[in-house]
Amino acid sequence: MFWLLSGHSMVKVLVDVDCGVDDASAIMMALADPEVQLLGITCVNGNTSVENVCRNTLRVLKACRRPEIPVFRGASRPILGNVLMAEAFHGKDGLGDVPDPDAPGLELIQKEGAVEAMIRIANEHAGEVSLVATAPLTNLALAVRLDPTFPKKLKGLYIMGGTTEARGNTTMCAEFNFAADPEAAYIVLNDFPCPTYIASWEFTCMNILSWDFYDQWLDQDSEKARFMKQIFQYSRDVSQRQLGEAGFAFCDAFAMAAAIDKSFVTECEEVPVTVELAGTYTRGMMVIDRMSYLKKEHKAFILQKVDMEKFKTLFMKALE
Amino acid sequence: MFWLLSGHSMVKVLVDVDCGVDDASAIMMALADPEVQLLGITCVNGNTSVENVCRNTLRVLKACRRPEIPVFRGASRPILGNVLMAEAFHGKDGLGDVPDPDAPGLELIQKEGAVEAMIRIANEHAGEVSLVATAPLTNLALAVRLDPTFPKKLKGLYIMGGTTEARGNTTMCAEFNFAADPEAAYIVLNDFPCPTYIASWEFTCMNILSWDFYDQWLDQDSEKARFMKQIFQYSRDVSQRQLGEAGFAFCDAFAMAAAIDKSFVTECEEVPVTVELAGTYTRGMMVIDRMSYLKKEHKAFILQKVDMEKFKTLFMKALE
Amino acid sequence: MFWLLSGHSMVKVLVDVDCGVDDASAIMMALADPEVQLLGITCVNGNTSVENVCRNTLRVLKACRRPEIPVFRGASRPILGNVLMAEAFHGKDGLGDVPDPDAPGLELIQKEGAVEAMIRIANEHAGEVSLVATAPLTNLALAVRLDPTFPKKLKGLYIMGGTTEARGNTTMCAEFNFAADPEAAYIVLNDFPCPTYIASWEFTCMNILSWDFYDQWLDQDSEKARFMKQIFQYSRDVSQRQLGEAGFAFCDAFAMAAAIDKSFVTECEEVPVTVELAGTYTRGMMVIDRMSYLKKEHKAFILQKVDMEKFKTLFMKALE
Amino acid sequence: MFWLLSGHSMVKVLVDVDCGVDDASAIMMALADPEVQLLGITCVNGNTSVENVCRNTLRVLKACRRPEIPVFRGASRPILGNVLMAEAFHGKDGLGDVPDPDAPGLELIQKEGAVEAMIRIANEHAGEVSLVATAPLTNLALAVRLDPTFPKKLKGLYIMGGTTEARGNTTMCAEFNFAADPEAAYIVLNDFPCPTYIASWEFTCMNILSWDFYDQWLDQDSEKARFMKQIFQYSRDVSQRQLGEAGFAFCDAFAMAAAIDKSFVTECEEVPVTVELAGTYTRGMMVIDRMSYLKKEHKAFILQKVDMEKFKTLFMKALE
Repeated sequence: MFWLLSGHSMVKVLVDVDCGVDDASAIMMALADPEVQLLGITCVNGNTSVENVCRNTLRVLKACRRPEIPVFRGASRPILGNVLMAEAFHGKDGLGDVPDPDAPGLELIQKEGAVEAMIRIANEHAGEVSLVATAPLTNLALAVRLDPTFPKKLKGLYIMGGTTEARGNTTMCAEFNFAADPEAAYIVLNDFPCPTYIASWEFTCMNILSWDFYDQWLDQDSEKARFMKQIFQYSRDVSQRQLGEAGFAFCDAFAMAAAIDKSFVTECEEVPVTVELAGTYTRGMMVIDRMSYLKKEHKAFILQKVDMEKFKTLFMKALE
Repeated sequence: MFWLLSGHSMVKVLVDVDCGVDDASAIMMALADPEVQLLGITCVNGNTSVENVCRNTLRVLKACRRPEIPVFRGASRPILGNVLMAEAFHGKDGLGDVPDPDAPGLELIQKEGAVEAMIRIANEHAGEVSLVATAPLTNLALAVRLDPTFPKKLKGLYIMGGTTEARGNTTMCAEFNFAADPEAAYIVLNDFPCPTYIASWEFTCMNILSWDFYDQWLDQDSEKARFMKQIFQYSRDVSQRQLGEAGFAFCDAFAMAAAIDKSFVTECEEVPVTVELAGTYTRGMMVIDRMSYLKKEHKAFILQKVDMEKFKTLFMKALE
Repeated sequence: MFWLLSGHSMVKVLVDVDCGVDDASAIMMALADPEVQLLGITCVNGNTSVENVCRNTLRVLKACRRPEIPVFRGASRPILGNVLMAEAFHGKDGLGDVPDPDAPGLELIQKEGAVEAMIRIANEHAGEVSLVATAPLTNLALAVRLDPTFPKKLKGLYIMGGTTEARGNTTMCAEFNFAADPEAAYIVLNDFPCPTYIASWEFTCMNILSWDFYDQWLDQDSEKARFMKQIFQYSRDVSQRQLGEAGFAFCDAFAMAAAIDKSFVTECEEVPVTVELAGTYTRGMMVIDRMSYLKKEHKAFILQKVDMEKFKTLFMKALE
Repeated sequence: MFWLLSGHSMVKVLVDVDCGVDDASAIMMALADPEVQLLGITCVNGNTSVENVCRNTLRVLKACRRPEIPVFRGASRPILGNVLMAEAFHGKDGLGDVPDPDAPGLELIQKEGAVEAMIRIANEHAGEVSLVATAPLTNLALAVRLDPTFPKKLKGLYIMGGTTEARGNTTMCAEFNFAADPEAAYIVLNDFPCPTYIASWEFTCMNILSWDFYDQWLDQDSEKARFMKQIFQYSRDVSQRQLGEAGFAFCDAFAMAAAIDKSFVTECEEVPVTVELAGTYTRGMMVIDRMSYLKKEHKAFILQKVDMEKFKTLFMKALE
């Protein structure tokens, strides 16, 4: 195949997930792209327990017939240890509560821990790894504390998380991934000097796709589409029937799309960011320093506009 | 005049200011409206010291030839006592540093204090007073602590202040009036059960007027226009030349316009609000409770859309 | 009487109370001392609602046959409005739940508010008033915000409240009067430049008197002793039977004793103090700045050692 | 030797240090005790940079002729990344600024990281390891997040750190090791279910030894004593001449003594503890929950009284 010859253009991706139906869509997008080399998937507590996240990730790989991708177990609790739950949206098992009797077992999880694996993989592919983080940032934060040189070896960091206008989805002002581990988000936004792209909650809300599109997406004749249809049903019901929302955004897929297709992102705000840790109402809120109040040199790229046609194409391919 | 006969439609207004060129515009808008009865002006530390605020207010009344309006001195420090300064924008005297050798003296300030006057006036006109607050909310907060029945006697409260999208103008996330006394803002947003209208910083930024409009405004042939031209020059220079802004908003005038013309506001978000007091980066930020997290019954009206043609008309008349 | 001739040595005292059986003891101690001129009693929300505090204060004055002492109603809520309750210790009415059918009515409360009265009295006796504060410091904080010159006119301030070793009695680290209004305590400790004496919770715990002493105290043959015996029974039961404590301290009486007898206090730590407002566990804790970290000039006198024999004498006389 | 035969009574110790002259004394105390098996020394940023800590630890081992003890490099920054400095007391190199031209090089540091080594050693000696922590608790906190089962495998944890009466030595209320990484201290006090002994700052202040004792200690005729005399001179000068203190406490040695001799500690307060993270003045303060406010099951043992004669004996032997 042509893409094998043009190895220099391959995108090496490491994904950190709390899988999660939207994490599943991101993983499947990566696996469907011939120019993406998925180096591994690290799991972390978030939408559900890290054990569930490991199980769910193995199921996604099974549905994609890619069992060779290594999966690593990471942190079971956020930095400070106070665990948030997201069952209401993702189901008790974090993947729509449609158990697979033939699901792969946890014995398939790598013996090496997620944080150690992250550090090793970044060393083995120094300067080449795009780290896509679609979960609470606990593993990433632990990695930089264990090895301060870790983030410098990343080519780029693509985060789904944070709020840009204080419109929280978990607390009044904070988005789930940041609210679930504010200290980790703070550490990553302050101690990762690599190029950092952020798909915020408000950004994803501005880019929902219609239910009609989802019908089309899920009605593809493939094992992957049937799998996604099953695991998405629960969240779809919550969104469509209970909340009456006009459409839906697979938030995590935006971070992945940004990582695997440079031309997907058409406009960014480049600005220093950090996280509020101490607020009564604002703990976990992403804070944007447009006034250079913090004297930080590093600026993040906050996604403003993207090419939604490219997104739809990548998205459709994910289930082909 | 007709309006004297139809006294029932008169709007009784009390203004709390840290005067300030934008406060001046709000006062002048009120004075220019024949249907407005300005019951008094209470002064508070904010843009400049409360002594300067008193002096500036007397100068505005002199320029409008309305020396009979009573002016009251209020709090010289915010609730917790840590004073912010705003000289960079308003000049050292808070009114553009164009001293008037014949300025009225502080002996014209009422003997009664601002907080006591607020409470008395609300009692004398129970249910009829529209309180327009264009400054840090210290006086209002002290009033409700001295007399818990005070806010129930107001017809409505019109506040210029707060952020709705965490886009601060004083700290990263907080607007000046809220940042200058976060505890006062918290008290007012939580303990004033009267109808409360908020012209936020983001709202005013969405409704700037062009420099051309300001030329037209200031070129009116009147003593008021000449006065305003003088005191506005300093802030105009900062905005236009240093910051290179495309236009300008007299923030405080929006709160006044909302108070004196019901039809001015065409769309509001009705939602509970409070203020973050404890954050490292977010202290003083207005917090919007769209998720009913706080279980508050009282909802504020956050201005979303206004009739800018009406605003321009009121604004032009202010200097006629 | 001789003391009438030596008026120059009279101690002019104003008491701010949340009366409270220990406030009652402090008031009675003041009333029993011929060298004390009690200028008035200001009431504030604390141990019980400010209405109850007013009623309880009138009952104490009735029991002492001193109905001429003016009583003023003050703040019904702390600065930020979050009310703590202390019924468990003081009874539902704050005075041991032994209602008096002939209790004086609230019509005896002065029309003038407590904060206004404080300011007026300090003006009328500038430099002469010893303010004894045995309650949350809300009234005092409001007074300095209404009139920044108020605290400079005090001769001295005597506070019962605060912790010196983070041994709280209401939260893990905070004493009741400070925990009930941390912002007020912060304001008073930071904005009252007058000599300030503090009887902390740990101090009072080091100076408990035995139950035998209380028997002797209450068995005096007087109306006052019979009144105190009644109102103290509830708290005594809680202390003695439920908590099994070896003795008891009428905390508020220490602050009063310090105000009325200079020789009572034999050792103080002179050190800057402030209050933690933002802590998760430490909000309301008094913070002692032994390292001059805050660069404050004003130092408080924290009571270390007192003459307990003098205290017992003053205490016995209170019920004679 | 007899103790080889009675292996069952051996105390297996792992030490986490920010070496530091007091850490040096603790290490030397352990090495001097024939019943102690020192499994390794993990280093962490604290009194000085982690590189200096590694170098200093190697020098201590050289002075004790015990180069076989493995030394591991740990975290170079606290959890949130804001580094405190302690040069004023420990010298620029953290060990009194008396460089050794023949000091061992960092190539002697183990390749394995400190956190990984801690976890491995606890696994290899499950239930047997006494972990003595005389530094900021960063390594321990990272270990429990990487492996939640780690603390359950410890026999006991012996911490030098924290305040019990809010008498800070680094901030107004916080002791250095806790102030240097409050989040780590919080994590360790909340997520280590093993028996936990705490030698607080106040405790060590109550147990200083006289300068005469130190003369006697350092005048022993041994290489170790001469080494200690050199590295202690700087801190001794600061304490004795600048601060004029009556004596001195090698704080870290108390934690070690408690670990290696059960009979050393004669009285403890057994009580739940945690750490304030959010306070303005109290961040990093140890919080003691005597009121069971936190509903925690785990209680720490806070050292109250110790056998100082035993301490002196252990201490003298450390330099023999």
